[in-house]
Amino acid sequence: MRTSRSLAVALVLVLTAVGAMAAKAPVSEDTEACIGCHEEVTPGIVADWRRSRHAHTTPGEALDRPKLERRVSAASVPEALRTVVVGCAECHTRNPDAHPDTFDHNGFRVHIVVTPADCATCHPEEREQYGRNLMANAHDNLMGNPLYGALVAAAAGPTTYNGQGLVVSPPDERTLGDACLACHGTRVTVEGMETRDTAMGEMEFPRLRGWPNQGVGRINPDGTKGACTSCHTRHRFSIEEAREPDACEQCHKGPDVPAYKVYEASKHNAVYQSSRGSWDLEAVPWVVGRDFTAPTCATCHASLIVSPGGEVLAARTHEMADRLKHRLFGLPYATAHPRSGDTTVIRNKGGLSLPSELSGEPVAEFLIDGAEQARREARMRSVCSGCHSGQWIRGHFERLENTVRTTNALTLEATKILLRAWESGLARGPGQGGNPFDEAIEKMWVEQWLFYANSTRFASAMAGADYGVFANGRWYLQKNLAVMKDWLGFLSRPPTGR
Amino acid sequence: MRTSRSLAVALVLVLTAVGAMAAKAPVSEDTEACIGCHEEVTPGIVADWRRSRHAHTTPGEALDRPKLERRVSAASVPEALRTVVVGCAECHTRNPDAHPDTFDHNGFRVHIVVTPADCATCHPEEREQYGRNLMANAHDNLMGNPLYGALVAAAAGPTTYNGQGLVVSPPDERTLGDACLACHGTRVTVEGMETRDTAMGEMEFPRLRGWPNQGVGRINPDGTKGACTSCHTRHRFSIEEAREPDACEQCHKGPDVPAYKVYEASKHNAVYQSSRGSWDLEAVPWVVGRDFTAPTCATCHASLIVSPGGEVLAARTHEMADRLKHRLFGLPYATAHPRSGDTTVIRNKGGLSLPSELSGEPVAEFLIDGAEQARREARMRSVCSGCHSGQWIRGHFERLENTVRTTNALTLEATKILLRAWESGLARGPGQGGNPFDEAIEKMWVEQWLFYANSTRFASAMAGADYGVFANGRWYLQKNLAVMKDWLGFLSRPPTGR
Amino acid sequence: MRTSRSLAVALVLVLTAVGAMAAKAPVSEDTEACIGCHEEVTPGIVADWRRSRHAHTTPGEALDRPKLERRVSAASVPEALRTVVVGCAECHTRNPDAHPDTFDHNGFRVHIVVTPADCATCHPEEREQYGRNLMANAHDNLMGNPLYGALVAAAAGPTTYNGQGLVVSPPDERTLGDACLACHGTRVTVEGMETRDTAMGEMEFPRLRGWPNQGVGRINPDGTKGACTSCHTRHRFSIEEAREPDACEQCHKGPDVPAYKVYEASKHNAVYQSSRGSWDLEAVPWVVGRDFTAPTCATCHASLIVSPGGEVLAARTHEMADRLKHRLFGLPYATAHPRSGDTTVIRNKGGLSLPSELSGEPVAEFLIDGAEQARREARMRSVCSGCHSGQWIRGHFERLENTVRTTNALTLEATKILLRAWESGLARGPGQGGNPFDEAIEKMWVEQWLFYANSTRFASAMAGADYGVFANGRWYLQKNLAVMKDWLGFLSRPPTGR
Repeated sequence: MRTSRSLAVALVLVLTAVGAMAAKAPVSEDTEACIGCHEEVTPGIVADWRRSRHAHTTPGEALDRPKLERRVSAASVPEALRTVVVGCAECHTRNPDAHPDTFDHNGFRVHIVVTPADCATCHPEEREQYGRNLMANAHDNLMGNPLYGALVAAAAGPTTYNGQGLVVSPPDERTLGDACLACHGTRVTVEGMETRDTAMGEMEFPRLRGWPNQGVGRINPDGTKGACTSCHTRHRFSIEEAREPDACEQCHKGPDVPAYKVYEASKHNAVYQSSRGSWDLEAVPWVVGRDFTAPTCATCHASLIVSPGGEVLAARTHEMADRLKHRLFGLPYATAHPRSGDTTVIRNKGGLSLPSELSGEPVAEFLIDGAEQARREARMRSVCSGCHSGQWIRGHFERLENTVRTTNALTLEATKILLRAWESGLARGPGQGGNPFDEAIEKMWVEQWLFYANSTRFASAMAGADYGVFANGRWYLQKNLAVMKDWLGFLSRPPTGR
Repeated sequence: MRTSRSLAVALVLVLTAVGAMAAKAPVSEDTEACIGCHEEVTPGIVADWRRSRHAHTTPGEALDRPKLERRVSAASVPEALRTVVVGCAECHTRNPDAHPDTFDHNGFRVHIVVTPADCATCHPEEREQYGRNLMANAHDNLMGNPLYGALVAAAAGPTTYNGQGLVVSPPDERTLGDACLACHGTRVTVEGMETRDTAMGEMEFPRLRGWPNQGVGRINPDGTKGACTSCHTRHRFSIEEAREPDACEQCHKGPDVPAYKVYEASKHNAVYQSSRGSWDLEAVPWVVGRDFTAPTCATCHASLIVSPGGEVLAARTHEMADRLKHRLFGLPYATAHPRSGDTTVIRNKGGLSLPSELSGEPVAEFLIDGAEQARREARMRSVCSGCHSGQWIRGHFERLENTVRTTNALTLEATKILLRAWESGLARGPGQGGNPFDEAIEKMWVEQWLFYANSTRFASAMAGADYGVFANGRWYLQKNLAVMKDWLGFLSRPPTGR
Repeated sequence: MRTSRSLAVALVLVLTAVGAMAAKAPVSEDTEACIGCHEEVTPGIVADWRRSRHAHTTPGEALDRPKLERRVSAASVPEALRTVVVGCAECHTRNPDAHPDTFDHNGFRVHIVVTPADCATCHPEEREQYGRNLMANAHDNLMGNPLYGALVAAAAGPTTYNGQGLVVSPPDERTLGDACLACHGTRVTVEGMETRDTAMGEMEFPRLRGWPNQGVGRINPDGTKGACTSCHTRHRFSIEEAREPDACEQCHKGPDVPAYKVYEASKHNAVYQSSRGSWDLEAVPWVVGRDFTAPTCATCHASLIVSPGGEVLAARTHEMADRLKHRLFGLPYATAHPRSGDTTVIRNKGGLSLPSELSGEPVAEFLIDGAEQARREARMRSVCSGCHSGQWIRGHFERLENTVRTTNALTLEATKILLRAWESGLARGPGQGGNPFDEAIEKMWVEQWLFYANSTRFASAMAGADYGVFANGRWYLQKNLAVMKDWLGFLSRPPTGR
């Protein structure tokens, strides 16, 4: 191992040296100045950048690539950026007046938080597509929906036992930043300036609130939404990393959204694990059969996929629902996808920001219609067709459709038990002025849809069936119902003075 | 990373080109015809096949290898197959009359579902051994055992709450295909012919029911059992992939059979993770110390293992219980392995298809005897001896024996509580005409053995101790007992009208 | 894949051959004698050793390296060891009289269990640092603390249901060796000699009790504590392996101490997974940005970390708390780290070996003070500074501090419910002569801190936020409280005769 690793490292060094001689990438003077200090102050990220494509390609070169091979979507870029590689200064001093966190730093007007608006200089389509995502709106969709506010309190807030019952309060800002908003994104604001003692002496910096954060729906100081670094980690900003399933693992592994765990149980993962060493996760376009032989998350949900003969099986998209017919998770019932990434605009008959009634009936006016559902599923089927026959694909999607139906039905049964508890006064629901998520039987109801129905649907959608049986799926859908039924009975026993 | 990956890819391309020049593998005309269209229609699987050993070796060459290096077990193969590589046509047009899913396809009589009978043309021993497996019988062992039928309903069926209690029904066919039978195997049948619109125009195909499926006990249209693709994914059919632990992960990760999770917690995995880059998972025979330095699943349970000096430590087997003394999972009590892979023939005193009574007493006549148990354990110990001393191995197996005893004992205690619930009318067991798995306290009892006792035994058997303590093992065996005890008490409180 | 793997293997073989010609490592005659038989008897471990640095370097050469590159900490080594590589005999015949398991073996006085005292011949600093660890004391800290004794029984002991309640007993020795002590370490003693039939005929060996074991706090026959092989698996004893997160996975993955799972959910892991192929996990010193671009467990907790410019960001330590301000896990409340690795000396006001009262108030006299806490956190911050700005780091640690506070508060609320149960006679606590961990509501209380509070803290400390929300963190802290509250109510309902 040692020998082969050393060999690999040696070869990398040789090739890096060769590359360096052959074509010294033109680094701007400003970026050279940044590196001058930061190579010592934060060496890890400078080294990361040195390994990046940004450090070895100018936007001008990137624009000259044939259409399908292009990694930039801009028609053109500002002249000053065309002939230098994309370094520190190119991003961190871009549009300084638009960034409230811009400050004077060794003669430069630097901002700390590089935002989608900056990236859009070269990648405008990606930014525009991403902006339509549920993910781009993940902060507001959670924090701007009063119902979810109650869930956030019941999940992450402080709770006290007063000798009779429990009193739940909303969580503090630091807890939110370390819990829900770590993935959903914090609101990052500038609180003023401060002087800090650094390796280079005393310096002034903006003091940021809600920092650090790399959540998908981060609200940046400049008002933009999202953090491209959620998936393309600074400062390599690698397409390869974003195509590895581990990029998604950061936020898609818990029982509420176990996409990564389902992938692990799939045959796709078995192929990935044994074959990834010979795959090329950097290639654009990404050629099925040549560059990879089984999908990762990105293959199905985002990447430009091409057959060896050059046929486009799927266009690149950063709108993650672009190939998805249903919204499977995060809600009591799976429905068609919402029309808008901003779900705070949705209202059901009860006035709640939910795309279905408590009975499961969808609130159709806010959801994509059947024709759009069919278009989205057709895009996904085209990806599948790279390796699977039409009959195989049809069988797969028929089962998924069935799973959506059966899991919605099992949520409805749990809802009936909960409603019985509320109606009979054994728990305090919203009708009684209570938080609908803070009592034991209410939390069981939440788990019915947020954990078990979701997990079952993901297992069905991504062919990781084992996860949807005993791991966190159908078994628990059933057991949870049985426990809720008994619990309702126990609650109804006449208490003595406890 | 990019550089070294690109280098690796470049080297693969160079070597592939060199290989292509040196010895153009002879592809049959029929297979060339298949590839002609499918290279464009399903490029991923054609590319997979091109990377396979099948695409580069003729059965004739395979038969010429020295005995220990042979990957085929046939004494000879049909003359027509000897001198061409194993391509599409060689498998998909084999014995067309035996396959109800054979259809006319561009002038060929093609069947969709390649079965163990087809593979047995070159691999008869593997097929025969595999056929003796519990796995080959996994469909019938589950669906042909009325007791398990009740468990399947309680795990995956629809359930309704009628305001008083829960009513459980058997699951529909699509749910089964996406749940239990995804691993156990569906029954695949031909429902007739249908016309489909394809990239090549309208074509006729057999319409399959129970499709897609790659479960280990799949019942194929030709009546054979099993899918070799469960572990050797189409169309690379790789020995390397089957030797990676991820091959087994697909079906052996849930709490009911957490072999993969236990492996992850083992020292074997720590070595695997840090050393796999220098291992050769393709080699036959598989030489301990040279090709690998710690076992994967296949090492202990299936592969032909040889010492560097050429001594055979373990013969290859596709009967997975060949080195196993106990059946550790899937049943209330661990017992000796059943004599037959078909467990529907077993009857205990109560008439149930279970290898033990509810008291834990084994139903000896259907189980292997002590002498056979000793033979099987001796085979496993021989694998261990590649790296471990006799004393180390003895200590390990003494602990496993003890774990079987203690976990069986903790199942018995849970059974006592359940019987009390049944006897006192607080739950409806089979004696009262009830499904023994559909009430909360019954499900807790199921988890006692199906999750916690099994997990603890696997952790003991595979030296992944940490998994057997708090992860899903002994802690939960104890907690579950305590919860069941209280639950029985709660059930016995006089209810008010609920 | 096959091609590139074969290529890699071929290159390794070539390089090994070249290496062998260039500098034949001097193996002692005694070691040659060991290998003579063991190459055939236990080929795997001999092969492992052949791949090790020990097999290719003499201590004399190791001592000649520049200070920062040294992997040995001794000022000098015994003359006889200077000029031969570190082989079987060098370790297994070292100081024979100090080892009760020394026996005559083919003319050599060999001991089976190589201990930290043997390793300290070349690595005295590592041994000394490790000895100050909680880990080195893990056996006694668990088994020598009566309170933990009760927990061990409640977690792993046999339990019987007598028709009324459950009776918990202490676990047997084999269960302990396969459960708690697999990680904490067994006590290994010599029970006498025995004759065994081996591949080389009948031979006499010491019979060991508590064997096998590689737990971190193993008490060895010579009285020393620990097993260096816990992390540096025999017989490669690799620094690379110990730096892989999987080395820690063996004992740090369960819900009681889910460090590995939290790492998996971190961005650090996303970078690791996509970039590890180009990292050098063997390098000493370990240069951030050059040898690795994101931390593994070892980076933050143990390794010597240097900037590309040669500045030491962190000194090597084998005292794992050296960079840790808080003890986050294993106890009801997180506190400052204990002064001594031996925690059996701690006594709170109630006389228990716990570093806090049941109210959460820390027992300050046994814990490091604020100044020492600050020193430790400063060491960790220095590691972070390899890639992160001061503001980023400060924000991270402020959130961790907050998480310690909020999780301690949620433990206190659970404690209040438990105390109510004890006071009202609904459960039997230590005040009533009961095991405080054996009833359902007591076990829920244990999970509040041992599972959920710990997991939340780890998620916060290691930036794997997703694990601390729904996976096993804040959601369960809240749900568990709600369940405990209801359970207390159910217990208080007047029972009928059950």
